[in-house]
Amino acid sequence: MFSKIYLDNNATTKCDEDVLEEMLPYLKNEYGNPSSIYSFGKDIKSKINSARKNIAKLLNANEDEIIFTSCASESNVSAIMNAVRNNPDKKHIITTKVEHASIMETMKYLESIGYQITYLSVDEKGRLNLEELVSSITDNTLLITVMMANNELGNIYPIKEIGEIAKRRNILFHCDCVQAVGKVKIDVKDMNIDTLSMSGHKIHAPKGIGVLYVRNEIPYTPLIFGHQEKNRRGGTENVPYIIALGKAVQNILDDNYKTNNRIKQLRDKLEKEITQNIEDVYIYGDIENRLPNTSNIAFKGITGEEILLVLESYNIYVGTGSACNSELAEPSHVLVACNADLDNYSPIRISLSKYNTEEEIDLFVSKIKDVVTMLRKLRSRKDEK
Amino acid sequence: MFSKIYLDNNATTKCDEDVLEEMLPYLKNEYGNPSSIYSFGKDIKSKINSARKNIAKLLNANEDEIIFTSCASESNVSAIMNAVRNNPDKKHIITTKVEHASIMETMKYLESIGYQITYLSVDEKGRLNLEELVSSITDNTLLITVMMANNELGNIYPIKEIGEIAKRRNILFHCDCVQAVGKVKIDVKDMNIDTLSMSGHKIHAPKGIGVLYVRNEIPYTPLIFGHQEKNRRGGTENVPYIIALGKAVQNILDDNYKTNNRIKQLRDKLEKEITQNIEDVYIYGDIENRLPNTSNIAFKGITGEEILLVLESYNIYVGTGSACNSELAEPSHVLVACNADLDNYSPIRISLSKYNTEEEIDLFVSKIKDVVTMLRKLRSRKDEK
Repeated sequence: MFSKIYLDNNATTKCDEDVLEEMLPYLKNEYGNPSSIYSFGKDIKSKINSARKNIAKLLNANEDEIIFTSCASESNVSAIMNAVRNNPDKKHIITTKVEHASIMETMKYLESIGYQITYLSVDEKGRLNLEELVSSITDNTLLITVMMANNELGNIYPIKEIGEIAKRRNILFHCDCVQAVGKVKIDVKDMNIDTLSMSGHKIHAPKGIGVLYVRNEIPYTPLIFGHQEKNRRGGTENVPYIIALGKAVQNILDDNYKTNNRIKQLRDKLEKEITQNIEDVYIYGDIENRLPNTSNIAFKGITGEEILLVLESYNIYVGTGSACNSELAEPSHVLVACNADLDNYSPIRISLSKYNTEEEIDLFVSKIKDVVTMLRKLRSRKDEK
Repeated sequence: MFSKIYLDNNATTKCDEDVLEEMLPYLKNEYGNPSSIYSFGKDIKSKINSARKNIAKLLNANEDEIIFTSCASESNVSAIMNAVRNNPDKKHIITTKVEHASIMETMKYLESIGYQITYLSVDEKGRLNLEELVSSITDNTLLITVMMANNELGNIYPIKEIGEIAKRRNILFHCDCVQAVGKVKIDVKDMNIDTLSMSGHKIHAPKGIGVLYVRNEIPYTPLIFGHQEKNRRGGTENVPYIIALGKAVQNILDDNYKTNNRIKQLRDKLEKEITQNIEDVYIYGDIENRLPNTSNIAFKGITGEEILLVLESYNIYVGTGSACNSELAEPSHVLVACNADLDNYSPIRISLSKYNTEEEIDLFVSKIKDVVTMLRKLRSRKDEK
């Protein structure tokens, strides 16, 4: 029996040890309310401000543009509803067919109350066509919302170009950066991003903390009303997780994207070994322009779910599409948008983190070969009957 | 120097040791995403369901009526916006002048987009007049939202009567139960509550977790869209805090409201000693019908803020009004609603928890006597000049 090999880091990640260490005092004795006027709360406030500073630095934003939220879903909905509320005369939004559920479901709600949504298509590799974006814009368009990197394919989208298009047409631009943070250098100024969302639990902080960046020039109406976060997000601050996120971002800043090279080497090795050793393999996504950690890979004739469940019995964890959608038992909307041949090529998603080792990847590669061989045998017996 | 005496438990509370213990594994090694289909996440799902069961039991609700949120502010806004979205033909809401900031600020927003809000007045003790409520109802009324217990005064409001009035007129009834949970027995069925909010950090769980109860018969449109919580609240579940909240509620269920008697005895002793030993003291609120832990108490001629800051130097922490408003440097809207004589009687709020001891209360009483005497002397010298 192996010890656990966790290769589903686009679903969630393990907390860094030093992140945990940093937050624990604030779950224990340092429990003051940061909004209190006495000092038991005030010390906490300066820790929150340090976290805010780190995040601003990571995004090349100003500190007062950073709002702590409970998750990126909240940030996404906040950004979209803010755009809607502050542009009551416009009723058209442009997004893509491959966004996260929090965006897609918000779009469905807006359609139900009369908004017109354009869902940009993608090609078979999941790539956008910016000409389609440009030709979709009308005088009625209030918002363009496109993710920086896709959670299933790993595709990195041309955010700077999209930001320029939005700016030129004076349209708000929201960018869901959940999967990009720590893997792609983000610069909200250079990329002309008006609002941006990120999440803690994808970068080795806990589940339940997110960030919404809102450019200072943008009017902002909260989603959750109250006095905290300068009247932009109500609710007593989640002090431990804010401090945790600040530390996780500090770790990214300290690493300065170096670990991504090692992760990319492991991912590339994994794909090379698999394609060399297993027949009829297909890798989804924009191979040349992907996150360094992600591989969306299919083995002809067997389903991702079958592979996942067998791997689980070996204590190896991979994903199939987005965790957020996994209970729906529906095909991935991202792969459907790619017009994928899911009957023959139903993929698993392998997503690495800095904690994966070469030994783990070697073990995984030998195991996946056995699993695919076994499942293909089972399939061919079934077909014979 | 004393060790810390924390008497601001209506602002926030210390995590229970066993709550911390219960959640820690889920911040460390049990970090799977509960939406994943493999078992690393699935064990977590059963823990979440246990937490949900505890909360349903506490409220006499059904498990599928419990939605985990990031805080009571989110729950409050969700409940109000849901009522608004599902009643597009009605434009009138009834609330009170003494609600929490998350409610008040949502009302201000709704006024700004054309809604009519009735803010029920309170008398000098902060009590509501239900006749005013009844006479405020019109055919245009879509929602009544009244808190169960006031955070500043401790007043307990006649929620069952209000629930009956709302039900008779077929109006939605939301109840902010943040301060009541653990101190007042709540029964959503008996009290005819349609939606309810509660918070973890007021009951010895961490800051950053809340609950929204939505009666099954009520249509529900999410505030944060996504697939989690049966499509009612997007965002990867805050697994550690949900488990923590489940344990904190288990502790309340196990205690069965017994500790409240001890807390009430300490609070009553505190008030008796203060009024017997210090002149010109005024206790705000509905003395006969208050939370067992809260005392909102003023000392003629000196401000609550002065007292708070001197007490802080002795490592004693009390509040002035709501922590959420404390930075605004505005008088408490609750006391203004009570038509309080704040120039002469500016109060401190003392709020106890199960962790306060009789020794602490005795120390506090002797200290507050010295502090008040000292501050009154300073004041009279200043007046002489």
